[in-house]
Amino acid sequence: MSLKQSHAADIKDGNNINGTRTKFYTFDFLDLESGDKLSPVTIAYETYGKLNEHRDNAVLICHALTGDAHVAGISSETEKVGWWDSMIGPGKAFDTDRYFVFCSNVIGGCKGSTGPSSMNPITGKPYGPDFPVITIGDMVNAQVKLVEYLGIDKLLSIAGGSMGGMQVLEWMVSHPGRVRSAIPISTAARHSPQQIAFNEVGRQAIMADPNWKDGNFYGSSVPGRGLSVARMLGHITYMSDISMQEKFGRRFRDNRQPFKFTADFEVEGYLLHRGLSFIERFDANSYLFITKAIDHFDVSRGNKMHEAFKKTTAKVLVIAFKSDWLYPLYQSEAIVKACKLAGVDATYCVVDSTYGHDAFLIETEEETHLIKHYLEGVSRENGTVVFDIDYPVSLNHRVIVDMVRPGSTVLDLGCGDGTLLSLLMQEKNARDQGIEKDEKAIYKCVARGLSVFHGDLDIGLTEYGDNSFDYVILNESLQQVALPDRVLAEALRVSKEVIVGFPNFGHIASRSHMFFKGKSPVTSSLPYEWYNTPNLHFLSISDFIEYCKKRNIEITKSIFIGKNRTIKNFPNLFAEIGLFLITK
Amino acid sequence: MSLKQSHAADIKDGNNINGTRTKFYTFDFLDLESGDKLSPVTIAYETYGKLNEHRDNAVLICHALTGDAHVAGISSETEKVGWWDSMIGPGKAFDTDRYFVFCSNVIGGCKGSTGPSSMNPITGKPYGPDFPVITIGDMVNAQVKLVEYLGIDKLLSIAGGSMGGMQVLEWMVSHPGRVRSAIPISTAARHSPQQIAFNEVGRQAIMADPNWKDGNFYGSSVPGRGLSVARMLGHITYMSDISMQEKFGRRFRDNRQPFKFTADFEVEGYLLHRGLSFIERFDANSYLFITKAIDHFDVSRGNKMHEAFKKTTAKVLVIAFKSDWLYPLYQSEAIVKACKLAGVDATYCVVDSTYGHDAFLIETEEETHLIKHYLEGVSRENGTVVFDIDYPVSLNHRVIVDMVRPGSTVLDLGCGDGTLLSLLMQEKNARDQGIEKDEKAIYKCVARGLSVFHGDLDIGLTEYGDNSFDYVILNESLQQVALPDRVLAEALRVSKEVIVGFPNFGHIASRSHMFFKGKSPVTSSLPYEWYNTPNLHFLSISDFIEYCKKRNIEITKSIFIGKNRTIKNFPNLFAEIGLFLITK
Repeated sequence: MSLKQSHAADIKDGNNINGTRTKFYTFDFLDLESGDKLSPVTIAYETYGKLNEHRDNAVLICHALTGDAHVAGISSETEKVGWWDSMIGPGKAFDTDRYFVFCSNVIGGCKGSTGPSSMNPITGKPYGPDFPVITIGDMVNAQVKLVEYLGIDKLLSIAGGSMGGMQVLEWMVSHPGRVRSAIPISTAARHSPQQIAFNEVGRQAIMADPNWKDGNFYGSSVPGRGLSVARMLGHITYMSDISMQEKFGRRFRDNRQPFKFTADFEVEGYLLHRGLSFIERFDANSYLFITKAIDHFDVSRGNKMHEAFKKTTAKVLVIAFKSDWLYPLYQSEAIVKACKLAGVDATYCVVDSTYGHDAFLIETEEETHLIKHYLEGVSRENGTVVFDIDYPVSLNHRVIVDMVRPGSTVLDLGCGDGTLLSLLMQEKNARDQGIEKDEKAIYKCVARGLSVFHGDLDIGLTEYGDNSFDYVILNESLQQVALPDRVLAEALRVSKEVIVGFPNFGHIASRSHMFFKGKSPVTSSLPYEWYNTPNLHFLSISDFIEYCKKRNIEITKSIFIGKNRTIKNFPNLFAEIGLFLITK
Repeated sequence: MSLKQSHAADIKDGNNINGTRTKFYTFDFLDLESGDKLSPVTIAYETYGKLNEHRDNAVLICHALTGDAHVAGISSETEKVGWWDSMIGPGKAFDTDRYFVFCSNVIGGCKGSTGPSSMNPITGKPYGPDFPVITIGDMVNAQVKLVEYLGIDKLLSIAGGSMGGMQVLEWMVSHPGRVRSAIPISTAARHSPQQIAFNEVGRQAIMADPNWKDGNFYGSSVPGRGLSVARMLGHITYMSDISMQEKFGRRFRDNRQPFKFTADFEVEGYLLHRGLSFIERFDANSYLFITKAIDHFDVSRGNKMHEAFKKTTAKVLVIAFKSDWLYPLYQSEAIVKACKLAGVDATYCVVDSTYGHDAFLIETEEETHLIKHYLEGVSRENGTVVFDIDYPVSLNHRVIVDMVRPGSTVLDLGCGDGTLLSLLMQEKNARDQGIEKDEKAIYKCVARGLSVFHGDLDIGLTEYGDNSFDYVILNESLQQVALPDRVLAEALRVSKEVIVGFPNFGHIASRSHMFFKGKSPVTSSLPYEWYNTPNLHFLSISDFIEYCKKRNIEITKSIFIGKNRTIKNFPNLFAEIGLFLITK
C-alpha cells in the first residue's frame, strides 16, 4: 500500500479546518418524483469558507451511498475528520479561501436528513417501511431547496463520486440554469445489471435478517447480521483485485479461532470488522431506500443518453480510475461522449490507480491536480485569459495556425500538452477540443483550461456527429496510430476540413540513408532507430498524395517544411515535414 | 445470448447417452490432511464408455463447487441431462466410443458422497458441524481410492473447470505417477484474497441465517434465506458484466410487485429464482465446508508455485476464457508458467468468450475443438506420429530446419499454425514449443499435437529459465512486435542460439521504390501499404548486423534468400529475407 492509506477516513492532513459543525434546515414539504409528498423535510449540512458578495463562489459536494454532510475539517461534535478532507480546505483542491464549499446529507439517509429512521409526523413513530420511495432526482430537489435557502442563484461547481456523481449528473440535466461546472467522479449515468445485482444481494441479505421485520425494527434489535453481510460485499466491490492482493495477500489472521467456519485469512477478518462497525453507523432501511434510488437512476429516463444533456450549459470534468471495476471506465466514457454529442464542454481524465472504486477517496493528489486548475479556469471564465505559450512557436505550429480561420471550432487529435490548442485559442479565438492518450499531458491541458478527452485515437470518434468541427488536426500523430486509415476516415467524417502533418519518409536524407547505406532511416525528423521508434507507420509526401487520390480526398492546401523554412520545389525530396489541408 | 444458452444444463444435444445411473463405492476410512479420519466413506460416481483391455483409456472428470457425479447422458433416475453432457458421449470431446469416462461427487458434498449431511456412525445423526475439515487434497485422495477400486493404474486424462480444475492440479502434483495428461480449465492454483472474500460473504450470509443453528439444522428448517443469498452472489461472479447486459439489460420484470423492496429488474428476478431453486438442491453445510476447502487450497502449499510441479510427468492443457473475472487469465497463465519452469509440457489457450466464468460450461464447441485433438495426441503418444506437413516447404523454412541440430529443444516465437514446428519435429526429432497470439492458429497447433502458449511476445518469457532451449526461432515475427529490443534480449536469455528471420527492408526493390519514387516500399517481401501493414518495425540486413554489433551479439551464421534461391553477394541489396543464427 506504500504511502497511501486504503480509506479516506485514515488520511490525515495538516491543513484541517477546526471545529466544523453540522447545521440543519427544515422546510415544509418536498414533492417526490413518485407523486408522493415528504413533509416536513430536514436537511443536515456543513459549510466551509465564505459566500462572496456576488454569491457566485459556491461549490456543492455530493456524498456517496453511506456518506454524510461532514465532508471536511474536524467536527467540533465528534472530533472526526471529514470524509474528503484532503480535498477541501485552505489551499486545497476546493480552496476554502476562495470558494464557499458545502455538503448536505441526502434525504433517505440516516445522518441528520429526513430518512426512514426519522419520525413520521402522522404516526409519531419512525417511518420504517412507510417512508416513501425516493430517487436521485428527489435528493437533488432537496439540495435545490437548501441552495435557495442559502441565497445562491447559481453554483460555481458541483462535485461528487459514485452516487455523488449521479447527483452531479442529475443537477446538470434537471437544473441546468443553476450550475456553471460539474465534476462527476467514478460514476455512471445508469446502473448496469451487474451493479443492480450487487445491490440486490445486499438488500436480500438485510431482508433475510429476521430482525429486519419488514422494516419495523426500530426500538428493538437492528438487522445487524444482514446489514453487515451487505457491507462486506460492498467493500469487495470498492477495492480491486490488485489492491486486495497488496493489502492482504493470503496471510492468515493472528488471532485465528479453532472453530472451522471462522475467518482464517486477514481479508476475512478485515471484511468482518468493516461489516460489524457499519452496523453502528448506518440504518438498514436507509441502505435499502438509497440503493433502490441508485439502481433506478437513469439520467436520461430511458431515452438516448445525449438527449438528457441537451439543456446542460455547465462545463463538465469527468474523472475515472483505471482499476475501478464497480464503475468501469466505459460508463464514464459514455457520460463524456453523451455530453459531447449534446454539445456540452466536457473533459475526461482517467487516473492510473490500483485502488479500484475507492480510488476517488484515496487518489486525492491526482484529483487535486485536476480539480484545482479546473475550478480556477471556471472562476476566471469571463475574465481575460492569458495562455501559457512558449514563443517563438515552431514553424509547423505557425503554418497550422495560419491555416485556421479565426473563430473556428477545432479538434486536435493527439494534442499532447495542449501547446498548439492554446496558440489557436490565443491567436485565432478558436473553440478547441483535444484528444490525448498520455495522462500527464492531459493534466497539463486541464491546467491550461483546455477541453480534452483522455483516450486512444484508434477507437474512433463516436462522440462527435458528422461535421461537428471546422477543423480536425492530426499533427505528428497519424504515423503513431495503429489504424491510420480509420482515424483519417473518422477525422473527415466529423470535420469539414482536416489538417494533417507528418514526418516525410521521402526526404532526401531518408532516401539516401536507405539507398546508399541500405538501412532504416534515422534523420532529424525521424530520429529513432528501427527498434525503438514510436512510429508505427512510415509515409512520404508522395505516399500521402497517392492515398488521398485513392480515397477520393481533396487536398486543398499543402505546405512543406524543411529546416526552419518552407520548401517550394521537390517537397518529397527536400521537406522534412508535410502539412496538408484536406477535405472530402 | 444468440444461439448459445447461458447454462450448460439447458444445452440439449442429440447425442445423449440414455439411462445413466449413479453408483456408489464405500470404503472403510480416509486419512485426512488435517490428521482426522473419515470413516466410512462413500463415493457416488457415474461411468460412461468401456475400460479397454490395457485399462489405459480412463478419463476422470472433476466437478465444480455445486456439481455432482451425473456429468453426462440422461439419468434413468431423474431424467436430467448431465451438467457437461455436450462434452461427453459418442463422438464428443470425451469420446465414450474411445474412452472410459467417469465422474464422482466430492467428499464434503451432498450428492451421494459422504458429507456433512451424511450419517455420523458415532452419533447416529447427520454430522453437521462435526464433519471434519476437508481439503481439495482429501477430495482427490478419495478419488484415488475409487480409481484403485475400478482397477485403473494410470489415468489417460483428468479434466475439470473451476474447483474441478483445482482437483486436476492436485492430481498432477500429489499423484504424478497416475496421470498421463491433465486439463485444468478456468481455475487457479490458489485463491486470491478477492476470491476468498466472495466466498466468505457467502458463508457469512448462511451463518447469519438463524435456521443455520451452528450447523445443526437437520430435521428442522434449512437456512434457505442465507444459502439463497450466497448463491445469488455466486451467480454474479459466474457471469460477466457484458453477459448480464446481453441477458437482462435494464429491463423490468413483468410481474413487478407494488411493494418497494421487491425485485423490479429482470436481473433481480433471475438471481432470486436461482437462489431459491438452489435451496432445494444443495446443503448449506456442504457449501461452507467446500468453499473453505477451495479457499485454503494452494497447490504449492505456500511454496513457489513451480516447485509444486517438479514431480509432474503429465502433459497439461490449460484453458481459460477472456471474460472470466472470477478466475482471471493471469491465474491460468501462472499455472502454465509454473509448469514450464518445472519442465512440464504445458499448452495454454485463451478462448475469446463473453460468458465470464460460466464459459467453461457454455463454450463447449471451442473446448471440444481443443480437447478432442489434445486427447487424440495423448492416446497416440507412444505410436508413430505423422505430422500434417505441406510439401514442398518454403525455402526459408528449409534453411531454418537445416540450421537446427537433430534432437534439439526449440522455442518458436510467433509460431503461427505450427507448420515450422511440425517440420522440425518430423525431420529433426526436435522437442518443440511455440508462442502465438492468434486463437485460431493455436487451435491448429493443438490439433497438430504441439505444445503452445497463447500470448503476446512483448510480455517477455518469464516462464523459462536461462538457457532453457537449444534454439529460439523468431521467424517473420520480430518486425511485428512492439518491443523488438526486449524480445531479442529475452530470446537470447532463454536460449543458447537464436534464429532470426525478417523481410529485408534494404532490398534493391525497397530502396529503388523509395529512392526513385520517394514512397514507402511495397515489394514481394513487404507487400503492404503504409496504412495497412501489420509490420511495426522496418529493418534491413545491415540494420540487423549493426544492431548485433551494438548489443554485443555474435552472428554465427547468416543466410540470405531471394526469389526461391539463396543470395551470396550483396545480400542487403538482393536478399528479400535475412536469416541469422545469433548467440550471446
